[in-house]
Amino acid sequence: MIQAVLLSGGHGGEAVSATLLMLAFVLIGAKLAGEVTERLGQPAVLGELLAGILLGNAVAGPWVQELRASETFLVLAELGAVLLLFHVGLESTPREMLAVGGRAFAVAVIGVVTPMALGWGVGMLARPGDSWMLHAFLGAMLCATSVGITARVLDDLGLVRSAAGRIILGAAVIDDVLGLVVLAVISGIITAAGSGQALGAGAIALIVVKAVVFLVGSLGVGGLLSPRLFAAAVALRSRGLVQTLSLSFCFLMAWAALAAGLAPIVGAFAAGLVLEDVHFERLKERGEPALHHSLEPLIGLFVPVFFVRMGMLVDVRSFFDGSVIVVALALTAAAVIGKLACAIAVPPGVSRLVVGLGMMPRGEVGLIFAGIGATLHLAGRPVIDAGTYAAAVFMVVATTVATPPALMWAARRLRSAGAAPVD
Amino acid sequence: MIQAVLLSGGHGGEAVSATLLMLAFVLIGAKLAGEVTERLGQPAVLGELLAGILLGNAVAGPWVQELRASETFLVLAELGAVLLLFHVGLESTPREMLAVGGRAFAVAVIGVVTPMALGWGVGMLARPGDSWMLHAFLGAMLCATSVGITARVLDDLGLVRSAAGRIILGAAVIDDVLGLVVLAVISGIITAAGSGQALGAGAIALIVVKAVVFLVGSLGVGGLLSPRLFAAAVALRSRGLVQTLSLSFCFLMAWAALAAGLAPIVGAFAAGLVLEDVHFERLKERGEPALHHSLEPLIGLFVPVFFVRMGMLVDVRSFFDGSVIVVALALTAAAVIGKLACAIAVPPGVSRLVVGLGMMPRGEVGLIFAGIGATLHLAGRPVIDAGTYAAAVFMVVATTVATPPALMWAARRLRSAGAAPVD
Repeated sequence: MIQAVLLSGGHGGEAVSATLLMLAFVLIGAKLAGEVTERLGQPAVLGELLAGILLGNAVAGPWVQELRASETFLVLAELGAVLLLFHVGLESTPREMLAVGGRAFAVAVIGVVTPMALGWGVGMLARPGDSWMLHAFLGAMLCATSVGITARVLDDLGLVRSAAGRIILGAAVIDDVLGLVVLAVISGIITAAGSGQALGAGAIALIVVKAVVFLVGSLGVGGLLSPRLFAAAVALRSRGLVQTLSLSFCFLMAWAALAAGLAPIVGAFAAGLVLEDVHFERLKERGEPALHHSLEPLIGLFVPVFFVRMGMLVDVRSFFDGSVIVVALALTAAAVIGKLACAIAVPPGVSRLVVGLGMMPRGEVGLIFAGIGATLHLAGRPVIDAGTYAAAVFMVVATTVATPPALMWAARRLRSAGAAPVD
Repeated sequence: MIQAVLLSGGHGGEAVSATLLMLAFVLIGAKLAGEVTERLGQPAVLGELLAGILLGNAVAGPWVQELRASETFLVLAELGAVLLLFHVGLESTPREMLAVGGRAFAVAVIGVVTPMALGWGVGMLARPGDSWMLHAFLGAMLCATSVGITARVLDDLGLVRSAAGRIILGAAVIDDVLGLVVLAVISGIITAAGSGQALGAGAIALIVVKAVVFLVGSLGVGGLLSPRLFAAAVALRSRGLVQTLSLSFCFLMAWAALAAGLAPIVGAFAAGLVLEDVHFERLKERGEPALHHSLEPLIGLFVPVFFVRMGMLVDVRSFFDGSVIVVALALTAAAVIGKLACAIAVPPGVSRLVVGLGMMPRGEVGLIFAGIGATLHLAGRPVIDAGTYAAAVFMVVATTVATPPALMWAARRLRSAGAAPVD
C-alpha cells in the first residue's frame, strides 16, 4: 500500500514502480537474447529486437499493453535512439567525410537513389491506390546504411583499413546523412499534407530548405563554436564536465531538430559529427576517459530499451496475411538490389562484391525510420500500417542477418582466388 | 508542426521534446553550479541543489510548474536516487561492515539515536499540536550520515585509511542502514495511519518486521545467490553483460523494496551491498571497466536531475516566515549536536573531534528523506509541508557546507598540537 504514496502521490509512484520493473526485464531479456545471437555470429541488435517481438507477442497480459502506451517507456526509448545516433555521429567528422572523396560519395548517392526508386516502385505495385507520398516513404526507408553494424562486421573481418572498407564506411556515413535529409523531406511533406494544407511546390521547397539549412547550419555554426566552447570547458576543473556538456549539446541539438520540424535523431547525429576527439586531447592527458567510452554505459542502458520497444510494436499476426509476406520479400529484394547497385561506382582493383554486400545492412536506422512512419498519418491512416511495419522489420532483420555471413563468404572467395580484397 | 506528430502522437512527442530540453538545461546548470561550489571548496552536490533552487524560484514561467508536475522528470530523478544509493552500496560489503566491528557500531547507534531524539524534541516544540508520528519523522530525517560526502572529504584530506577515517566510514554505512530501517518503519506507520486504519502494536510490529526481513533477507539470499549468478554471467561473452545484469539486479531490488512497502532506494542500497568487486575479477582480466566505473556516466546523467529537482521543490518564500527560520536553525542544531555526541564512543588515541565532525553531513540521503516526507500525508496534510521542507533543506545544506572546512580545521589543529590524528 505504501508504494503508491511514497513518491509524489499515487500516479508518480506507479510510474516509478513500472519503470523499475520494465528496465530490469528489458535489460536482462535484451542482453540474454543478444548473447544468443552473438554466439550464432549475428549482431546483438537482432537479439534485442527478437526479445521485444517475443515480449510483445508471446507474453500475454495487460501490462504489455500498458507498456506499449507508457509515456516514460517512449521517452526512455527515444533517448536511446538519440544517444545511439550521437554515438554514430561521433565516429566520424565532417572533415573525414570530405576526405573519403568522390568515390565514396558516388557509391553513397547510387546507394540512396537506387533503393529509393526500387522501394517507391514496390509501393506503387503493393499499394496502388495510395498516395505517391506513401510510396516515397517506403523508398526513403530503404536508403540509410547502418554504419554501426557495417563497422562492426568489417572490424571482425579485419577489413576496416582496406580500400573497400574505407569506401564502405565513408559511403555509409554519407548515406546516413542523405537518408536523414530524405526522411526529413518526405515526413515534412506528409505532415503538411496530413494537416490538410494545400501542398504547392513552394511548400515542398520550404521543407527541403529547412532540412538542409538545419544540417548545414548546425554543422557550420557548431563546427565553428564547439572547439572554443569545449576548449573553455576543458580548462574547468570538474571531473566529467566535458562529458556533461557534450550530452547537453546532444540533447539541445535533438530538441532543436524537433523544433525545426526534423526528427530528434537528425540533431543528435549532427551534434556527434560536430564534436571531434581533437577537442578532448587535454582530457586524455588528465586521465579522464574519452567521450565515446563514457557514452557506452548510457548506450547499454537506453539503446536496448529502444530496440525492445521496436520489437514489441511488431504484430506477429500480421505475417499470417499473405500480402504482408509478399511486401516483406519485395522490400527486402529492393533493399538488397538497391545497395548492390552501388558497386558500379567502385574503382578497378577493389572488390565490387565486398562493397555492395557491405552496404546492405539497414539495422537501427531503418527501424527508426519505420517507427517514424508508423506515427505519420495520411488521409486518417498511418503511413506505415501494422502489416507494412512488420514487412519493414522483416527487411531490416533479413538485410542485417545476411550481411555478416555474405561478407565473410565474399572475402574468403576472393582470398582463395588469389586476389587481394583487403587493400 | 511536425514534432507533435513524429513520435507516437502529440502527447508523446511533447514529452520527448520537454525531456530533451529539460535534460540539456539541468545538466548544464547543475554542472556549472557544481564547478562554482567546487572552486569554493564545497561538494558539487551543493551547486546542483542551488541550481535547482534558482531554477524553481528565480526563473518564472509556466514551464517550471509543468516540469515540477512532469511524470517523466520524476521518474528520471528517482532513477538518479536509485543509482546513487546503488553506487554507495557498492562502496561497501556486508563483510566489511562486520569487520569494522563494535566501535563503528557503537558510534553509529549513538549517531542514530541522539539525532532521532533531538529531532523528535524539535518537532514537539515547533509543532506541538501535531501527531507524534510527524515528530518522529523529523527525527528520522536527521539519522543517516551521507557516506558519499563523508568519503569524498576524508579522501581529499588523506584520512580514509586512518583509524578515525575507518570508524567514520564504517559508522556512516551502518547509519545509512539504520536510517533506512527507521525511515521504512516511520513511513510505514504514517502510511497505515493515513489510510485510516487503526494502528495497533501488532501493525507497527508487522511494519518493523517487514522492513528488517526485507533487508536481512535480501542481503542473505542475495549474498548467497549473487556470486553464482555473476560467476555464470562472467563466463558469457557479451561485452557489458555483467554491467547490464548488475543494473537489472539493482532495478529489480528497488522495485521489490517498493512492492514490500519500502522506499526504492532501500532495495538499491541492498543490491549494492550484495554485489562485491570480487565477483568481477575476471572482468578486469578481460580489460573491461569495473562496475563502479561504468556506473559513473549514468550517475553523471541522472543524479543531477535528482538534486536539481530537489532544489526546485524548495519554496524560497517560505523562508520569509520567521517560524521556518527558527525550525531550520533548531533542526540544524539537533543534527550537529546529535552527531557530535557519537564521539563519546570513540576509543582513546583517536580524535573525537574528527569523528564527530566527520559524521555531520546529511547530504543526499537527508534530502531523499525530506522528499519522501513531502509525499506522505497525515490527517490530509503532508508530513513535511513547504516550510518544514525548506527547513530540512537548510539543515542538509548547512551540515554539508560546514563539514569540509570544519574537518580541515580539526585535522590541522591536531597536527599542529603534535598529535597524530591520521593513524
